[in-house]
Amino acid sequence: MSSPTVTETFRAIDVIRKKRDGVELSRAEIEALVNAYTNEEIPDYQVSAWLMAVVLKGMTRPETAALTDAMLHSGEILDLSSLPARKVDKHSTGGVGDKTSLVLAPLVAAAGVAVPMISGRGLGHTGGTLDKLEAIPGFNVNLSVAEFRRVLEACGCAMIGQTAEIAPADFKLYALRDVTGTVESPYLICASIMSKKLAEGIDALVLDVKTGSGAFMKSEKDAAFLAELMVETGERMGKRVVAMITDMDQPLGNMIGNALEVVEVVEVLRGAGPEDLRELCLETAGWMLHLGGASASVAEGKQQSAKLISSGKALEKFRQMVELQGGDPRVIDDANRLPQARHTMQVASAKAGYMASMQCEHIGTACVILGGGRERKEDSVDPSVGIVLHKKVGDRVVAGEPIATIYYNAEAKATRARQLIEASCEITDAAPSTKRPLIHRIIEKSGEKN
Amino acid sequence: MSSPTVTETFRAIDVIRKKRDGVELSRAEIEALVNAYTNEEIPDYQVSAWLMAVVLKGMTRPETAALTDAMLHSGEILDLSSLPARKVDKHSTGGVGDKTSLVLAPLVAAAGVAVPMISGRGLGHTGGTLDKLEAIPGFNVNLSVAEFRRVLEACGCAMIGQTAEIAPADFKLYALRDVTGTVESPYLICASIMSKKLAEGIDALVLDVKTGSGAFMKSEKDAAFLAELMVETGERMGKRVVAMITDMDQPLGNMIGNALEVVEVVEVLRGAGPEDLRELCLETAGWMLHLGGASASVAEGKQQSAKLISSGKALEKFRQMVELQGGDPRVIDDANRLPQARHTMQVASAKAGYMASMQCEHIGTACVILGGGRERKEDSVDPSVGIVLHKKVGDRVVAGEPIATIYYNAEAKATRARQLIEASCEITDAAPSTKRPLIHRIIEKSGEKN
Repeated sequence: MSSPTVTETFRAIDVIRKKRDGVELSRAEIEALVNAYTNEEIPDYQVSAWLMAVVLKGMTRPETAALTDAMLHSGEILDLSSLPARKVDKHSTGGVGDKTSLVLAPLVAAAGVAVPMISGRGLGHTGGTLDKLEAIPGFNVNLSVAEFRRVLEACGCAMIGQTAEIAPADFKLYALRDVTGTVESPYLICASIMSKKLAEGIDALVLDVKTGSGAFMKSEKDAAFLAELMVETGERMGKRVVAMITDMDQPLGNMIGNALEVVEVVEVLRGAGPEDLRELCLETAGWMLHLGGASASVAEGKQQSAKLISSGKALEKFRQMVELQGGDPRVIDDANRLPQARHTMQVASAKAGYMASMQCEHIGTACVILGGGRERKEDSVDPSVGIVLHKKVGDRVVAGEPIATIYYNAEAKATRARQLIEASCEITDAAPSTKRPLIHRIIEKSGEKN
Repeated sequence: MSSPTVTETFRAIDVIRKKRDGVELSRAEIEALVNAYTNEEIPDYQVSAWLMAVVLKGMTRPETAALTDAMLHSGEILDLSSLPARKVDKHSTGGVGDKTSLVLAPLVAAAGVAVPMISGRGLGHTGGTLDKLEAIPGFNVNLSVAEFRRVLEACGCAMIGQTAEIAPADFKLYALRDVTGTVESPYLICASIMSKKLAEGIDALVLDVKTGSGAFMKSEKDAAFLAELMVETGERMGKRVVAMITDMDQPLGNMIGNALEVVEVVEVLRGAGPEDLRELCLETAGWMLHLGGASASVAEGKQQSAKLISSGKALEKFRQMVELQGGDPRVIDDANRLPQARHTMQVASAKAGYMASMQCEHIGTACVILGGGRERKEDSVDPSVGIVLHKKVGDRVVAGEPIATIYYNAEAKATRARQLIEASCEITDAAPSTKRPLIHRIIEKSGEKN
């Protein structure tokens, strides 16, 4: 064990002990810890002990804001002041079939609000925006900051992955949390999300915090706690942040799998697509337009968004962005140009009745089994495979009728996926008596509702 | 961040998460974690996160025993079955002026009970047995296991430091705990102490758990908790363990400092020495003789010990051990052969009254300042310096009368030590109305008292 490095005024051991003993850390102490770790002046083993103490002892609101701020300032903060438009982004905590980002970036940009979006990859049962974009042949998510800015200036939206310049402290901390059982802390999740999003140089942020069987936060209580924490942290850092608690107790939309989700995105941008996905996109866009100063209210922003879809302007913006980022825009008119799975397999219902519930996480896992997602970060993804759901919760089911179609390249994997989907779908004689709302709650400053 | 190694049935991350979530770990899980760490198959950063989870979530009694057992079996367990005598050791949680081990090993051996003692060094304000032994010119505490056995066979007691073969898991874990704020857990302390002591191949163990201002466990409640945990853990591992909660609210005996403490040890072995030290040695020896089968009761063991002192047999055994371990036995008859400080300085009482209390930790720190102890593990120790107390709690003090003498080699250090001693001694007009007992409690199985 080599002796940890010590600066004159900061000793990591003191900060670890304080957090362990439930003492509130000062902004200076948190900043010193984050900076020392980013600069490799303190070892992983001290930071992992501190992270576990945070998981078990929690953080106050000022501590959470200080951590977010220190992580934000560990790297570059984009200066987009040369763009005259207001800059608004959205972030989802992740789920199954959640492709709203691909609809929202062009839709909101079409209304004149800039969307500089930095996204992540899928991990575990949840998909990732970057993987979906990369299903479009040629689409480049690895733009430099200069290229990102050029696309943004040209079309009002751009979608890339995290760069080494953005919040490097989060990059290091996340890798350590992943292997030390310290992912599951709302305070650490908040600081990780908010530090990256605020590094985009945005004016406002809409958060989509998922709850239900396919979400990271299974209970609405946990989802609301995280949402409130992020809203308050954003406010403490001078940004307008609104959080929507939305449902992830069944997949969002009907298509799961990277190329299939691009197909469904195009459907929504054409004014079609499944009702739940379309509704969530409009509601979120309404908030983004309102916070971006493009509409007087959320309701007005929603109406405006519907018009931008029916006029074809949102789809046109999507086409423009795809082209600017090197993607083949012909996929929009010809879905066959997207990666295609070689085979399909039907999942038939064994009995008649009603779809009472879907174990959403398991349906996401079925897609991972097919090769459409990652069990580990280093896994590669097959963009062509996936699942199309023909029934959602509440739907009537006839015996023998297909409830889903599996798109696959390896039969053994398809068989395992089918079994998992079958086991995940609960079919009952009577229709379910209650329906979970799509949008559970909106959390914003001072309880104001639009 | 390199991927942590994973064996087929054990993933460190699962064990970390379980402990974090308050789930009891199985014996197999704890064993796998300890073995993987000892064999460098899992990284420090995973173990430190797990240690912090243990500090904050605690351990059940079976978990504590499993951890102790796994650490014990990470190295060699001495087989002393060739020695016909029963083997009994003692362990103290550490304090100021606690030199009982040097009295007890020869005293108990003189009664025919073998004492195979593996001890530690001083750290922080507390002294260490090895440092005291090394004040004797030539005394070698770094014996091999074979040499240790030979001394033990020749005279019935031997005193050495930890070897690389004994509980290597504890060696690694302790170094990691020291720099990650995870020292302060009774479960981890218990496993650390008990794994090393049980590796000595002993039949029974007497624990001296200190409480008060100079102890690691300041409150009697914390001391009793640790004592009960160690007694129960020993029992679960098939050993007879008795714990004494003893006072460390003022230094034990009058002399503090390595060579000075050897002088006081010889005084006690000659039948003189300060009352508190003599009494604690006799009481502990009584227990060790009783557990070692040399006396029918603790009281009888105590009487027998007093006789072994007055007959000179205990001192003779000490002389024999010193000689066998390469030390100069002439120090016993001529204290001037021990390392001598060049100067002395009196600490005079500013006022008349009674010694009401002594801040014991600060008096230990005063000795460290003189050079007699270590602030950090890598520091070296000056055996010649120290403090002789002329007044203890309850004693009458005349204005201007010396309450202590400082033995020093550097004046600036002596001045700082004097100021610290002055500040540590509270002198009041009235005599203190209550007196803390020397022995607070005895904790043994099923409440049996001898």
